[in-house]
Amino acid sequence: VRAAVLRNGEMVVRDDVPEPIPEAGQVLVEVVACGICGSDLHLAQHGAEMMALARELRGEHGGNEVDLDRDVYMGHEFSAKVLKAGPQTTTFTPGTAVTSMPVVFGSEGAENIAFSNTTLGGYGERMLLSAAMLLEVPNGLDPKIAALTEPMAVGVHAVNKSNIEPGEGAIVLGCGPVGLACIAALRTRGIETIVATDFSDSRRALATTMGATEAVDPNTSTAWEAWRRHARGPAVIFEAVGARGMINDVLKSAPRHSRVVVVGVCAGQDELVPYFGIAKEINLQFCLAYDRTEFEHTLGLIANGELESTPMVTSTVGLAGVGRAFEALGAPDEQCKILVAPNA
Amino acid sequence: VRAAVLRNGEMVVRDDVPEPIPEAGQVLVEVVACGICGSDLHLAQHGAEMMALARELRGEHGGNEVDLDRDVYMGHEFSAKVLKAGPQTTTFTPGTAVTSMPVVFGSEGAENIAFSNTTLGGYGERMLLSAAMLLEVPNGLDPKIAALTEPMAVGVHAVNKSNIEPGEGAIVLGCGPVGLACIAALRTRGIETIVATDFSDSRRALATTMGATEAVDPNTSTAWEAWRRHARGPAVIFEAVGARGMINDVLKSAPRHSRVVVVGVCAGQDELVPYFGIAKEINLQFCLAYDRTEFEHTLGLIANGELESTPMVTSTVGLAGVGRAFEALGAPDEQCKILVAPNA
Repeated sequence: VRAAVLRNGEMVVRDDVPEPIPEAGQVLVEVVACGICGSDLHLAQHGAEMMALARELRGEHGGNEVDLDRDVYMGHEFSAKVLKAGPQTTTFTPGTAVTSMPVVFGSEGAENIAFSNTTLGGYGERMLLSAAMLLEVPNGLDPKIAALTEPMAVGVHAVNKSNIEPGEGAIVLGCGPVGLACIAALRTRGIETIVATDFSDSRRALATTMGATEAVDPNTSTAWEAWRRHARGPAVIFEAVGARGMINDVLKSAPRHSRVVVVGVCAGQDELVPYFGIAKEINLQFCLAYDRTEFEHTLGLIANGELESTPMVTSTVGLAGVGRAFEALGAPDEQCKILVAPNA
Repeated sequence: VRAAVLRNGEMVVRDDVPEPIPEAGQVLVEVVACGICGSDLHLAQHGAEMMALARELRGEHGGNEVDLDRDVYMGHEFSAKVLKAGPQTTTFTPGTAVTSMPVVFGSEGAENIAFSNTTLGGYGERMLLSAAMLLEVPNGLDPKIAALTEPMAVGVHAVNKSNIEPGEGAIVLGCGPVGLACIAALRTRGIETIVATDFSDSRRALATTMGATEAVDPNTSTAWEAWRRHARGPAVIFEAVGARGMINDVLKSAPRHSRVVVVGVCAGQDELVPYFGIAKEINLQFCLAYDRTEFEHTLGLIANGELESTPMVTSTVGLAGVGRAFEALGAPDEQCKILVAPNA
């Protein structure tokens, strides 16, 4: 099996990965497309730090432990076609387009399909999924677009966690895939006022396409000034930048009684002044991933055309293009979501 | 009028404060008792830093600005007896025991009774209140105990903000007056499991008296170990220590999906690892004060004997004892809430 793997901080293509063999309950699938996620880039650049933080959280909260001195399989935003089921396992007809939450159950328990030394992810030609987790791509949706279910579900979950109600307005800080997914999900909830910010011209244009009322360049106007042009009172704020100092900026500048959903991951230590949050009674909701219901709901919304998602796809590459794609995503003005099509 | 005032970081007694004269809408009252709050101690020790932080928050969020080079009047946890109303103002019969939220309306607008170069607070023999804000001390409650309405309302508000429901359990970190008020308020809401922590033996004893299920010494057992002896799953956590690093400790150690109410004020900058919060989807609610309904409700709960409050009062002093009381409160094993009785 060919796969792009992380080796010494670089994405390289191997063609000697052992063919995965489905156990009972598993299904071998051919990957149609797999999106490149910011967390993949982060592992490539700051893997040791990520693993150290994960180890600090004992138990299941820390996610998978991987050995960065060995090849790492990645790719958790995938769609696929069914090839064959393992023993005593019933699944869809071969050729059926599917997607799944990135978790697979095997004889050793559940494993997240994210970063692994042993379990192939979506950056390979074929991979194993659990029959019980497979969702058929509905409504004739382009199977490639079904790979956006995972990143869009992150936005759907963040909006659910915010408890935003029609009539309230939102501020989305950062218009990378996570911020854009929040914007699209806010639109499905009937939110009319969505102020977005990003330094990149092209990402601000995407934000508007995906439903933002106004997308501002922080060099020109702050989110808070823009907010006051559209609304009064508390805002529901989605922090999707994930850079150091962002949470403190929000505490300092947000309207009183605002709710803040922290959906961007700031790696490592951050500084803030609790008094800013206290004086304004800010609520901070830290947010991760989605649940199974939200994932399935997101796939349906995309297939029914209710959740805008395709504009964020800026290119599709083969396995040999993954390394360059990782580099290109470092410059956010050029690319947003790059899909990898390992079998194209 | 005699009053204890903050001068160059020390509490000194003046007997030459000009007699306050009620304007229309105001009432002159004789102070019965006024509790010493941690924020008073903090202003005495770190006043310049507090003022700098307040200035960083523009607008009304920053609270009152005071000149620390001039005498500062303090005392916002008071009860009083009505002396006389200002012109065109109706109020209770002279001698009626009252309390009020610490805000007074005058010709220049609303002023918080907390830290002021001009408006007397509860550390003086007499002060001005607004007729519209006065609450009569009901049910024959000892007027002195009515001075606990303000600190207890902080706990009632924090518990309201937590949205805790019967069947859920709480962890209260820090058993100073704020933590104890949270414990008492949790009991009024029917919360059965309340794990409290404090390094001080006497404060742990108070915590148990006021309703904690178990009060643990962090030198012996962590709050999290104690929690697992009583409950499973997410906790509703009240951070009432307000020391640097506490929020991060909570993010790192709290059960997944816990809600954290930050009711202790950590002055200045703090550090945390957002990833800890994200991996467990923690909710952080920063919390300040109370609203008028909560204040009035708290007075009623105390008067009806439904809200335990008196155990936290460890002594009562006159104006001449305020300086020593500020010093004594630096050693939490000796004192908890000290009341000042300016006319006793």
